[in-house]
Amino acid sequence: MPVSVPVSLDLASLRAAYAEGFDPRDLIAAVAARIAAHDDPALFLARPSAEALAARAASLAGLDAEARAALPLYGVPFVVKDNIDVAGLATTAACPAFARMPPASATVVARLEAAGAIVVGKANLDQFATGLVGVRSPYGTPRNAFDARLIPGGSSSGSATSVAAGLAAFSLGTDTAGSGRVPAGLGNLVGLKPTLGLISTSGVVPACRTLDCVSIFALTTDDAFAVLEVAAGWDATDAFSRRIPLGRVGPRPAVVRVGVPQPRDRRFFGDVAGAAAFTDALDGLAAQGFTLTEIDFEPLFAVARMLYEGPWVAERMAAIEDFLTAQPEALHPVTRTIIEGARGRTAVEAFRATYRLAEAARAAEGLWRDVDILVVPTVPRAWTVDEVEADPITTNSALGTYTNFVNLLGLSALAVPVAIRADGVPAGITLIGPGGGDAALAGLGRSIEAAFAPPLGATGVARPPLVPVVAAPQGDEIGLVVVGGHLSGMALNHELTALGARYLRAVTTAPVYRLHALAGGPPFRPGMVRVAQGGAAIAAEVWALSPAAFGRFVAGIPAPLGIGTVELADGARVKGFLCEAAGLDGAEDITASGGWRAHMAARR
Amino acid sequence: MPVSVPVSLDLASLRAAYAEGFDPRDLIAAVAARIAAHDDPALFLARPSAEALAARAASLAGLDAEARAALPLYGVPFVVKDNIDVAGLATTAACPAFARMPPASATVVARLEAAGAIVVGKANLDQFATGLVGVRSPYGTPRNAFDARLIPGGSSSGSATSVAAGLAAFSLGTDTAGSGRVPAGLGNLVGLKPTLGLISTSGVVPACRTLDCVSIFALTTDDAFAVLEVAAGWDATDAFSRRIPLGRVGPRPAVVRVGVPQPRDRRFFGDVAGAAAFTDALDGLAAQGFTLTEIDFEPLFAVARMLYEGPWVAERMAAIEDFLTAQPEALHPVTRTIIEGARGRTAVEAFRATYRLAEAARAAEGLWRDVDILVVPTVPRAWTVDEVEADPITTNSALGTYTNFVNLLGLSALAVPVAIRADGVPAGITLIGPGGGDAALAGLGRSIEAAFAPPLGATGVARPPLVPVVAAPQGDEIGLVVVGGHLSGMALNHELTALGARYLRAVTTAPVYRLHALAGGPPFRPGMVRVAQGGAAIAAEVWALSPAAFGRFVAGIPAPLGIGTVELADGARVKGFLCEAAGLDGAEDITASGGWRAHMAARR
Repeated sequence: MPVSVPVSLDLASLRAAYAEGFDPRDLIAAVAARIAAHDDPALFLARPSAEALAARAASLAGLDAEARAALPLYGVPFVVKDNIDVAGLATTAACPAFARMPPASATVVARLEAAGAIVVGKANLDQFATGLVGVRSPYGTPRNAFDARLIPGGSSSGSATSVAAGLAAFSLGTDTAGSGRVPAGLGNLVGLKPTLGLISTSGVVPACRTLDCVSIFALTTDDAFAVLEVAAGWDATDAFSRRIPLGRVGPRPAVVRVGVPQPRDRRFFGDVAGAAAFTDALDGLAAQGFTLTEIDFEPLFAVARMLYEGPWVAERMAAIEDFLTAQPEALHPVTRTIIEGARGRTAVEAFRATYRLAEAARAAEGLWRDVDILVVPTVPRAWTVDEVEADPITTNSALGTYTNFVNLLGLSALAVPVAIRADGVPAGITLIGPGGGDAALAGLGRSIEAAFAPPLGATGVARPPLVPVVAAPQGDEIGLVVVGGHLSGMALNHELTALGARYLRAVTTAPVYRLHALAGGPPFRPGMVRVAQGGAAIAAEVWALSPAAFGRFVAGIPAPLGIGTVELADGARVKGFLCEAAGLDGAEDITASGGWRAHMAARR
Repeated sequence: MPVSVPVSLDLASLRAAYAEGFDPRDLIAAVAARIAAHDDPALFLARPSAEALAARAASLAGLDAEARAALPLYGVPFVVKDNIDVAGLATTAACPAFARMPPASATVVARLEAAGAIVVGKANLDQFATGLVGVRSPYGTPRNAFDARLIPGGSSSGSATSVAAGLAAFSLGTDTAGSGRVPAGLGNLVGLKPTLGLISTSGVVPACRTLDCVSIFALTTDDAFAVLEVAAGWDATDAFSRRIPLGRVGPRPAVVRVGVPQPRDRRFFGDVAGAAAFTDALDGLAAQGFTLTEIDFEPLFAVARMLYEGPWVAERMAAIEDFLTAQPEALHPVTRTIIEGARGRTAVEAFRATYRLAEAARAAEGLWRDVDILVVPTVPRAWTVDEVEADPITTNSALGTYTNFVNLLGLSALAVPVAIRADGVPAGITLIGPGGGDAALAGLGRSIEAAFAPPLGATGVARPPLVPVVAAPQGDEIGLVVVGGHLSGMALNHELTALGARYLRAVTTAPVYRLHALAGGPPFRPGMVRVAQGGAAIAAEVWALSPAAFGRFVAGIPAPLGIGTVELADGARVKGFLCEAAGLDGAEDITASGGWRAHMAARR
């Protein structure tokens, strides 16, 4: 008997089905049927021909077991925002007159296809990815899968609704100011906005080239991160591509300091149910053991305002100036108004904004000494289509309240679904971390998503239980024992997470060490020294780092600390922090405290 | 008998004098006398009061021997370009109406003073550091120390002439487009343009903030680098400061590939003697054992044109717009014309130029696979003051021929004196390396300067012989044995020099290894494996890296290569490249070649 299509197209369900003999040709047919049943004429701007899809499915079906096992996204259907090139399909950026047949697929699409994924359609968007609303397209407004009166969010509107409606396993969006998160929040989805430069933008119609990211929508954090692992990678053809170690997803650290907006910075624009849902989410996080700290968000809001009040709109103009000049009437009127706002902007303003941003980014670096992540509402208010059409600019700006500053500051972010409100509207939160913190966010996001356990998108399917991640180094990872400020929730932990490190487990050392509080600081630092007699067990944590991250981390360790081999209570010998005996001048022996966390807590 | 002031104020002479009991108070008096004798009313825009200088000298004289030894620039007189703040002296940027008393010294000045150096004056410059000529100041034109008819070069005109004339040991300039090199070329000086972000620009009047560097003029490369070692360092108050490992100066590597402009890209604007001097310099480099390769410079010239034809002039406007708007007549007419050129520039142009530059920089990265450094004339032609005044814009642009692209591409550069032409005009060359290559350039520069041996500045004093640098790791440096593409002059060597690594020596391993050419590539790579029997000695080199650079380097090594411990012919055991035996599939045993360099040469 043939294996039937899984109800939910999440990766775990697809993998299980393929393992039992499910056929990619049946997947193609099932997806086509679901698209037909969903019946949203504003969703897809193009789809591969039936022949092309059949050929793609047949080629995958023809692979032997070994070849299939080598493809991490074997037979996984995905949707591509129509500002990202797919060979054989015109790219429109939701502007019919702009349509052009691309010479090849975008680098990111080519990488995903090489991993076995199948493009099933090009999705509608806010024209030229300019907007957060999802109603700025001449092709109409993709239907919000929860409530047709609500906006789908944008600009990656169709990318999000296709996944929420269960038509694909994941989709690609772009995120320049929040377009990869706002539609996730309005679709009960995960929306992964990677660190700038992690995914190539070669073959993507630019919005603001210095800020543009390709983003990922998925039903679960694990799915989004699995896609990211394929999509990420340096690309010589993208001048803005950066070499960033991605890291792997790890268990939730013992202590996580969560910065949340102080009450006066919580902006919901009259959405009472939204405000209540955010309060509930924070209560839930506290109940899950997160340490919440209220933060003054005004410096971040000030950065966000730069995007709308500053000259970055000139980047949108730079992307399409010739086209706009030749065919101004071809643009959506709102989009045209916004982009033409660039005409008055001077080069002096552009450079001044660059300076202000560099200074704001330098100042924001200090944030990560106090918190490990920020948590914000993904969407401040779930506006209706009618409300947005009545006031297209103000509502759009307000939608970026909790997203814009992330792009300008080069941070990483992950929108996570949390709950469906009593009125049927999805409520999500977004986790924000430093640039390079993508893996750390995913490790937290999967845990949070599992604890709140909302259903998968708008499919009504219950969220599957979390598969525990392996608490040991995997592949070429290197384990690292930390005993001081790098412990989870402490002042230097961000140095690990920014390198893509993942938390493995809390441990104690073998009882052969003395712990000292070194002279000097801040930062205050402990020094652990192995002794022949009179040693004690010291509380520690093991983290895992890629070789590249490990090298970078070791390179930054100041004397008298260094990396040697630390013996753990279970006999394991792992690379970790030790201290030169010569560095103990003026230090205080704090072995009796049992560890640095207890010592610091007692000092307060 | 009191020790008298050294004839030349180079650091070696000053250190020797102080070691014999020379008194900083006598230095102050001698410098004052020399300044009076030099008698250039256009040179200094401000000098510390006699009382302030006396107090500073007395405080240094009062230190005991231990305290003096801790000050690497003890009693060293230096001059500061008057766009860099010195507490107690007004900063004018050569615009009297712009003068303002700074709240404190610039970070770089404070660092140098903390190391024992003494500010003896603020020097004239092309107004607002806009120009490469040295004649754009309402305070007059500092006199070229070789020939008063020649321009001194700018914008750091006074900084250069003061050192050339023997009035100070070194001086600070700024370099946004060549202002730290052109005046060095016209003054027979070393001009060190550090990697962007290495020296803080806090307390410097901006020219183009995204390009500005503080630069160093000195009589010798060793002096310039000694100053750089004090001046360099991350600064939280400068949003454009970057954490860059500086490294140390090493011996000249066995092989150095020098890229030089192909004949049709050698531009001298009619200066026949300058063209001949450059040819002589290249002949000299070849005779010194450098490997010369002709390079197509058009892509670099195209980058250079961006600076003048592009929107970066808007950065100059951004720096002084309020002042310029309020008092346009306060500006030098040429400076005003140039900066007002920013008025028509749009934000769209600014972002477009940013994109073009990012792409050009990405493309230029490939250069360092083929050459280790570039060598260019420092100045294309030694124009006279009269010629520049007759045609102020064209001559100025031409002066940047060999300098502008360096700043835009984020490279490091070192202008080195080579010869005094028969007509008395100095002829210099500039070495250019990748960003972060400052120490590598200095290691080459000192060797080149010593081989050509021109006199010191315009003092007529003969250049002292070179003190050999120590060919062993110093301080906390780590030695690294390389056997493949990282050998000097080979395709990956730039990865070492960009990390500030310094060459130590050529060695052979103990006769216990086999060398293999691995499958795949480019880049082609060897793999060295220790064997129990049948081993041979393999040609290798030892380089020295700082711990931070070592960590970064190790982090970037791809499998199957790794860093283990390599045994050398002399029995030393040094960290170095080894290869996993599992990586030898498909490899060719090339042990008989004796080493990677010989193997690759035989393949050609």
